[in-house]
Amino acid sequence: MTTLTINASRFLGDFETLSRIGATPQGGVNRPGLSQAHLEARKWFHQRLSEAGLEFHVDSAGNHSAILRQGGASKTLLLGSHLDSVPYGGRFDGALGVVAALEVLRTVKETGLHLPYHLEAIDFTDEESYHLDYFGSRALAGFTTPEELKMPISGRGKFEAGLALAELSEAGILSARRNPASLAGYLELHIEQGPKLTSAHMQVGIVIAITGIRSFHLLFHGKTSHAGTTPMGDRQDAGLGASAFLLAAREIAMSKTPDCVTNVGNMQFTPGVLNVIPGLVETALEIRSINEPSMDILEAVLLKQAQIEAERFRLGLEIKPHSRVLPIHMDTHVRSLLMESAQALGLRYMEMPSGAGHDAQILAQVTKAGMIFVPSVGGISHTPLEYTKEEDCVNGANVLLGAALRMAGD
Amino acid sequence: MTTLTINASRFLGDFETLSRIGATPQGGVNRPGLSQAHLEARKWFHQRLSEAGLEFHVDSAGNHSAILRQGGASKTLLLGSHLDSVPYGGRFDGALGVVAALEVLRTVKETGLHLPYHLEAIDFTDEESYHLDYFGSRALAGFTTPEELKMPISGRGKFEAGLALAELSEAGILSARRNPASLAGYLELHIEQGPKLTSAHMQVGIVIAITGIRSFHLLFHGKTSHAGTTPMGDRQDAGLGASAFLLAAREIAMSKTPDCVTNVGNMQFTPGVLNVIPGLVETALEIRSINEPSMDILEAVLLKQAQIEAERFRLGLEIKPHSRVLPIHMDTHVRSLLMESAQALGLRYMEMPSGAGHDAQILAQVTKAGMIFVPSVGGISHTPLEYTKEEDCVNGANVLLGAALRMAGD
Repeated sequence: MTTLTINASRFLGDFETLSRIGATPQGGVNRPGLSQAHLEARKWFHQRLSEAGLEFHVDSAGNHSAILRQGGASKTLLLGSHLDSVPYGGRFDGALGVVAALEVLRTVKETGLHLPYHLEAIDFTDEESYHLDYFGSRALAGFTTPEELKMPISGRGKFEAGLALAELSEAGILSARRNPASLAGYLELHIEQGPKLTSAHMQVGIVIAITGIRSFHLLFHGKTSHAGTTPMGDRQDAGLGASAFLLAAREIAMSKTPDCVTNVGNMQFTPGVLNVIPGLVETALEIRSINEPSMDILEAVLLKQAQIEAERFRLGLEIKPHSRVLPIHMDTHVRSLLMESAQALGLRYMEMPSGAGHDAQILAQVTKAGMIFVPSVGGISHTPLEYTKEEDCVNGANVLLGAALRMAGD
Repeated sequence: MTTLTINASRFLGDFETLSRIGATPQGGVNRPGLSQAHLEARKWFHQRLSEAGLEFHVDSAGNHSAILRQGGASKTLLLGSHLDSVPYGGRFDGALGVVAALEVLRTVKETGLHLPYHLEAIDFTDEESYHLDYFGSRALAGFTTPEELKMPISGRGKFEAGLALAELSEAGILSARRNPASLAGYLELHIEQGPKLTSAHMQVGIVIAITGIRSFHLLFHGKTSHAGTTPMGDRQDAGLGASAFLLAAREIAMSKTPDCVTNVGNMQFTPGVLNVIPGLVETALEIRSINEPSMDILEAVLLKQAQIEAERFRLGLEIKPHSRVLPIHMDTHVRSLLMESAQALGLRYMEMPSGAGHDAQILAQVTKAGMIFVPSVGGISHTPLEYTKEEDCVNGANVLLGAALRMAGD
């Protein structure tokens, strides 16, 4: 029995062409959601799917789709990712999954295979959340609220300008919900954005769950005073508490909860000048894991540690919870189909958590979802240096194809 | 023998009136150099000195003076400070010394005493260096360079606007030098801006020397990466090196060089967001002391420690020297006259270093200079909470008067 595979040279050629849209001199792309370059990439997607004889569809949240209808089918299997990038990001994040989905539809169409579900290659709007948190996939899932439209992440001005450019409306975003009963599932191919596959000498990762995230702003309150006239022992230097906490947070996460990661991504000193003792330091703390009980432990220990460090340096501590995203587990049956697909291709694969967020975590809340990772060289992502080898891109697309053929239509 | 004293109620009344100019709701003043409020304060000073029958003079750097001429004298004893404030600062810093100098001239004039030198109460332009480093006193000393006018601290736009408002010119600033041979000395009354006098139960401080300052920007270079996908052990987190350095700097300064103080007043994280490992942290480090050899030791040990912390966390270190101000010693004879003056008034006084910079450090480079401190409640300065008790203000003005009468005219 031969295993069906995609047309690798057409797939790689398309990916290469797409990478030129919004290209930056450093070798990456700059295609923030609803920017001119992003919309140009979507126009290219539309042209390519039309050339392939696929049906085109855009929903009222701007999600772009290629559809391959199957006679007698009632449900649709979504294969997708996103064509937008973080500002001055890399070529692979998102784009790889959309081009692979398109290639799967073309391959299935050419073989004349009949499946018990329609196939839809979908490009979700603004996955990187430049304007709205998982803009397109949350709108499709029916999760978007009128409140978040009033306070978009990009600010009202940029949001309105983006909507106008893409010919979208707020009413449209709020009414873009697809009936979950119409969906047969969701599959996404994405780069790993980390070094684990390479370290383990693996070609493919099958995602177990997508990380939960808890974030906080911790404010260490000291006393602003003159750096020349205040004796060292009399100071209430907010920088001391914040720095001691940053160092302790790493030790605690590594020793107590190895299935969690933590990051202090920022410290904002006030007033933040050479000659004044900082009276306030605001730190930005994040905790991630696919294991909720571990996150409970780490959160409790870190917040306690922040209090200990504040007291040690005679500072006040203010804790402002910022965001809380639950870990989302991929469908067990879909995971087994993805593993079967990788096995059939003779690829080295492993199951692993996703430390980054993806549209799949939104789709998993309304349908059976699965995700495939391919290795990121050096674990680098969200920079122009992001890179995945051609053979790994092709492997990932073939696993996606294999799983798409194995899904059940009921 | 009775000791001559100022008119305390007139002096305090004037200080109170002046405090209303540029007053902020928190009880401080907002009079940055050459702002509308600063120029209004100068206009008030002009009115008060004219009412007192003193001669008015403005030099081409905008320094405002009241002059009390003495028949037969050839030199001038300057008594001064500044009427500008840091943005949203306190009422006492600078203003106290100018009003006290004016009151000394009025008192001497009323007694009809004859001194062997002219007396001049001078309000130096922009001591807080909003536009230029010790703007007025450096211009009077002839230290201002054409280069610094090209790159003013406030930026060219604000600088030009300030000059226009105050009717000053760059050529004027560069030609404001006073011949040092025409000066008999310089005396300045100022608030301590620290807690040492209060801690020692002293009423007056006689300044030994004004602190030297060395500052640096230390850049810890790591690797920007995704906070969710990069394993904790693989990171090159610039925040770790910077934080470990901040903590170590305090320990080192306190244990190795107790005659120095140090401050890390700022850390700038790049990119500085919750979900990205910081690839760069720029810290702002300052060292102060009146003892150069101690500063040499502390500088060497701290820069070595920064290198140690960088290596410990696999980071690069870049050291950018920022500024270097030598400690300036006050004139020994003037110090003894200030002590005599305090003794004659029966005040508890002590000799002490100044941890903050003052116009006196500029004047000390061209003439015999001395400085008097009065206690700052809580050691607080550069905020609206800055406060010095009325009796301490009066004591300081009387020590200034006593020393002004004791200076030699030759």
